[in-house]
Amino acid sequence: MTMQHVHVSYSSLGENEQHGIQHTCEKNTQEKIIISNERPWKPWQSARSQIRGFVRRVQTAMLSLAGLEWYCYAALGVLTALMSFCMDLTIAKLLRAHQWLYGCLEGNILLQFLCWTLYPSCLCALSTCFSHSICPQSAGSGLPEIRIILSGVQLPDYLSLSNLFAKLIGLISTLSAGSTVFLGKVGPFVHLSNMVGAYLYRLYASACGEKQRRTQGEMLVVASAVGVASCFGAPVSGVLFSIEVMGSHYSVRDYCPCFFAAVCGSLTYRLLSVCSREQETVQAVFKTRFPSELPYQPPEILIFAFLGLLCGAISCVYLYSHRWILRFVRTNKFISRFMATEKTLYSATVAFLLASVTFPHTGGSFIASRLSMKQLLSSLLDSTQWNLISHNATVAQESPHSFWQEWSPPGYSVYHTLGCFILIKLWLLVLACTLPLPAGYFMPVFIYGAALGRLLGEGLAYLFPDGISSGKKLSVINPGGYALVGAAAFAGAVTHTLSPALCALELTGQSTHVVPILTATLISNALARSRHQPSFYDGISLIKRLPHLPSLIRACPKLSSVQIRQFAVPVGAVLQRAEGVMGVQHILNSSKENEFPVVDTHDSLTLLGTVTRAQLQTFLLSNQSEDLCKSLEDECSIQPVKLQLSTDATVKQAHCIMSVLREQCVFVTEKGKLCGVITWKEIKNMIEELAKEI
Amino acid sequence: MTMQHVHVSYSSLGENEQHGIQHTCEKNTQEKIIISNERPWKPWQSARSQIRGFVRRVQTAMLSLAGLEWYCYAALGVLTALMSFCMDLTIAKLLRAHQWLYGCLEGNILLQFLCWTLYPSCLCALSTCFSHSICPQSAGSGLPEIRIILSGVQLPDYLSLSNLFAKLIGLISTLSAGSTVFLGKVGPFVHLSNMVGAYLYRLYASACGEKQRRTQGEMLVVASAVGVASCFGAPVSGVLFSIEVMGSHYSVRDYCPCFFAAVCGSLTYRLLSVCSREQETVQAVFKTRFPSELPYQPPEILIFAFLGLLCGAISCVYLYSHRWILRFVRTNKFISRFMATEKTLYSATVAFLLASVTFPHTGGSFIASRLSMKQLLSSLLDSTQWNLISHNATVAQESPHSFWQEWSPPGYSVYHTLGCFILIKLWLLVLACTLPLPAGYFMPVFIYGAALGRLLGEGLAYLFPDGISSGKKLSVINPGGYALVGAAAFAGAVTHTLSPALCALELTGQSTHVVPILTATLISNALARSRHQPSFYDGISLIKRLPHLPSLIRACPKLSSVQIRQFAVPVGAVLQRAEGVMGVQHILNSSKENEFPVVDTHDSLTLLGTVTRAQLQTFLLSNQSEDLCKSLEDECSIQPVKLQLSTDATVKQAHCIMSVLREQCVFVTEKGKLCGVITWKEIKNMIEELAKEI
Repeated sequence: MTMQHVHVSYSSLGENEQHGIQHTCEKNTQEKIIISNERPWKPWQSARSQIRGFVRRVQTAMLSLAGLEWYCYAALGVLTALMSFCMDLTIAKLLRAHQWLYGCLEGNILLQFLCWTLYPSCLCALSTCFSHSICPQSAGSGLPEIRIILSGVQLPDYLSLSNLFAKLIGLISTLSAGSTVFLGKVGPFVHLSNMVGAYLYRLYASACGEKQRRTQGEMLVVASAVGVASCFGAPVSGVLFSIEVMGSHYSVRDYCPCFFAAVCGSLTYRLLSVCSREQETVQAVFKTRFPSELPYQPPEILIFAFLGLLCGAISCVYLYSHRWILRFVRTNKFISRFMATEKTLYSATVAFLLASVTFPHTGGSFIASRLSMKQLLSSLLDSTQWNLISHNATVAQESPHSFWQEWSPPGYSVYHTLGCFILIKLWLLVLACTLPLPAGYFMPVFIYGAALGRLLGEGLAYLFPDGISSGKKLSVINPGGYALVGAAAFAGAVTHTLSPALCALELTGQSTHVVPILTATLISNALARSRHQPSFYDGISLIKRLPHLPSLIRACPKLSSVQIRQFAVPVGAVLQRAEGVMGVQHILNSSKENEFPVVDTHDSLTLLGTVTRAQLQTFLLSNQSEDLCKSLEDECSIQPVKLQLSTDATVKQAHCIMSVLREQCVFVTEKGKLCGVITWKEIKNMIEELAKEI
Repeated sequence: MTMQHVHVSYSSLGENEQHGIQHTCEKNTQEKIIISNERPWKPWQSARSQIRGFVRRVQTAMLSLAGLEWYCYAALGVLTALMSFCMDLTIAKLLRAHQWLYGCLEGNILLQFLCWTLYPSCLCALSTCFSHSICPQSAGSGLPEIRIILSGVQLPDYLSLSNLFAKLIGLISTLSAGSTVFLGKVGPFVHLSNMVGAYLYRLYASACGEKQRRTQGEMLVVASAVGVASCFGAPVSGVLFSIEVMGSHYSVRDYCPCFFAAVCGSLTYRLLSVCSREQETVQAVFKTRFPSELPYQPPEILIFAFLGLLCGAISCVYLYSHRWILRFVRTNKFISRFMATEKTLYSATVAFLLASVTFPHTGGSFIASRLSMKQLLSSLLDSTQWNLISHNATVAQESPHSFWQEWSPPGYSVYHTLGCFILIKLWLLVLACTLPLPAGYFMPVFIYGAALGRLLGEGLAYLFPDGISSGKKLSVINPGGYALVGAAAFAGAVTHTLSPALCALELTGQSTHVVPILTATLISNALARSRHQPSFYDGISLIKRLPHLPSLIRACPKLSSVQIRQFAVPVGAVLQRAEGVMGVQHILNSSKENEFPVVDTHDSLTLLGTVTRAQLQTFLLSNQSEDLCKSLEDECSIQPVKLQLSTDATVKQAHCIMSVLREQCVFVTEKGKLCGVITWKEIKNMIEELAKEI
């Protein structure tokens, strides 16, 4: 019997330029039925053709409802949320296993010490070994590289499936090491969602063929929003993050897809936690119970502003130490040689060191080291005053969380532990940043900021035990509110972004503190950005000499006026208007380009337009037999060039034009003469040259 | 004695390209002290010079802290919030006066009817008369025009101070007419804040001179964010609005200024209401008391999605009716002639008609017409079930608001009143949209959506009196939550934006319903945007034939491929490389341009660059006396042109490049030959030509 190969390709409607979920696609389905007798007989021929017909009808119906890209966005959200949820489950199980083992060894301090230190060391070693043997690009946060890819420059291997696999397993191992290593999830997760997005884009492109209406860049912007949204179940901060991560211009066309995919992601993430009986309904991840009637008195806004200033100042210290240690690790001969050959051993050693310091029977009891990352954050956001609980047994029993006891070991007050936490964790975190494994740095910074705010809040509660009054009513100080404001302000200052403010609101599910959070985040950002200080990710970009133009310009503003003239832009193969068969043959043989510029004459070099390789081949074929040689101009239609840059344009302008207009290639002329051509490869080279100048 | 004129000009530091609140300005203050003896003696010479010195020191200190533009942003926020607050106060007083008068006339229905109808009629007539006699451009919402100005095209008189004055007084009169006329504040207020922004920008530009680092466009983007933020005290939705209002690309550089100014505005607005004893602390404008423990059951998300679908469908009906009536008013001979000559009478008649329908003793009691706009919204967002209150006297007494009684007149249930409200108000609102006075259309749409949601919520509460259960706990239906979701979804669908979702969250100060609100808004947007239907503002743009490219392309996607070739781009005065004194003299006399293109020869027309009028004048002066005439090339340095477009580029591309790169003028070449020049004037003409084609 015959076998039918059914190729169905859908033409997506015209130039449907604006975003909008429901596009009514034209249904001009082109069906090419190729009948071949090569394949052998297959069973259930009629059933299979029925199913095929049904699938085709469903496909048509779905595509008439919305364009294929919208299904991709939804799939991206759902897949990423699933990945995030499964990751959380696995990590929770591994953390519980460690706690169980540690509890079993109660009584024997040596064994407990070994359990406490070796477990995270092994996990970090595993993470490093795994990620480096499968894909070395999977180490680190991945956000600096994502920013580069979003600006249009391509980095090989950063969006491959092997990287996805390595990063996923590596990240699970890292996070299972718990609060000892004190690392987070967001950055690598955004990288992961970008890899999923790139993979979905490849599927989308192959399904659409040439009729695709979206570029990979658009899919990756959406994936960045989804990454943050699925990580915390926070759609709005995901969208704001996707705006901030773009270098210079955000295309408003991506706004709706970002929101759509982010809502799909966060809804799936939260519904999964409802299904797994973690939560009763769809609600915030770190739900707080701040009093909503009178959350704070108006004069407290000044204290919140001071907290912003404090967080900004400490963020500068942290950023400076971070850059220093990264440079030290790269320049110190011993460590850099050790890192080059024995990455796994280095990770294990550093993790062992970190775990030894945080061992509960020694220094760990002063920094609440028995709490996991999630427990640390939810304990810090608790609205009851710890100072009050520790002196009042009845309040202590009523308090829903028992985590506060970890912050108040026998004989020490909460001020001691919070102070120790702030002093010690900063250096531990700076050390942890040198680990060559997949890890995020947002959550630790967020928790650190929460501790800063908490200390200020507890201090105020001590100073004003009866609360602050500014009118009729008196309200008790809520240290949890200060912790939340501190977290947002410190995370915002370190990353030089404002989306942590929204993130703090969405994580807690309460918007009582929206004004203080935004005020403090703006102030801390102002301080952190003063004097062209690079942000956390800018610092990594600069030290690794990654080709990220905005961070280069931020570090050295005079680079924004560097002209493209400074870089030798090579002139490729050029055809002239009256080129004959011989010339065309020569150029086709000597060059591998797909498009060639056509000039008036080789002397004047006035750019007329471009011809494609296919056009030239047709030209050769048609003129091969004939003696009468026609010129290029007579036979090929020269495609005009829409845009020309002069050699006086700056690198920044060229980069901006190419990324905004999504051009792949721009011609450079000087006084009408063709000088060269710029593609993304040249842009990348230029930025790398600029990076060397700093 | 002598008088000292002290001119202080500050040079703002280098090319500080990136946003950041604290820029450390260089302090190289240039002081030119011009001593003249013309002016007479003035008293307190030493005291005055001391004060002047002090002011200068303060100025230097402030500018070393942050650039001047940041003070402008803060001033913009504070001024707009002050304006918003004063406006609210005046409107509240005028509304109370009307209520008092109406109450005094209790017992005499005829007098009450006259009071009820004539008060809004007079106010609407006043508003129309005032706005049209001072500045006819102040009528309407102003948002469609603001979108055009933000895209780069200039509209004369739309940002003038006389417009500000006319719009402010007109808007106060309109809003004082109350819920009878059912119009809002947001749109015109954004227009007002843009006018304040434009004025502040003129001050900024005159203070900075040529060293300014910001353009007017940037200030207007910030002003749009501030407008929404100061209107509701909602900073985040202000920023999202400023992103959505941009046509194609949002510059990430404006993101921080937008947030900063929006927070300044909303903080001032909320602090003012604290100072005026309206609120105890800084909190939301329409604060709700939804249960936070279990706000809704997971299956209810499906009902919320259905609500989104419903809102989307009804928004299509509303948008269609709105376009129809606008077109009818323009095309109907009688009405258009009446409108052209007797605008004031038309406004008074329509307002009288609207007030007659809503008179409480006739139909008004079925649509809760005694409630003001604010009372309508806060009553609809009430979390208690009205159905329950009306049957239970004790619950009724506990209920904080007594507004629900207006929704349940004797003998009728809340379903009757809500149904009547939804049926009648739609047509009244469509009619009110034809009024030629300053008015916003967001708030009425928001309230209408809330009524839709409330009806669904009350219906569900009737169907499930014991609440919905999906596990252990049972939760009672919260109709207020449905009202909030409906409001966001309907307002989002009508305006084709997503910022109403954030606005709903910030207005109520609770984020329990964030996921349902976003889901419903996305769904309603999807339905409203299907089949290239224009949004509310797009509809106005299209009917008024305003030069707004994105809405033209949305209405007719094939316009995006129209090339600039189709429009005759005129070639202005052109100089050639070897131009002599005579030619230059001729061109200077015949043309008024400030910049002239220089070509190789008049035959080849190869563009070399540009020279300025000043350069040409210097050239003429230096060659006047000499016999030996030098050519242009020898004496003037020809400034190269960075960017050239070909005639094959589309209007959309040209518009995008000019607005993204903030270019004022781009040269057009074809095959190396100069064809013409495009400035914003030509772009505007092109878009107006395109608008005629629809």
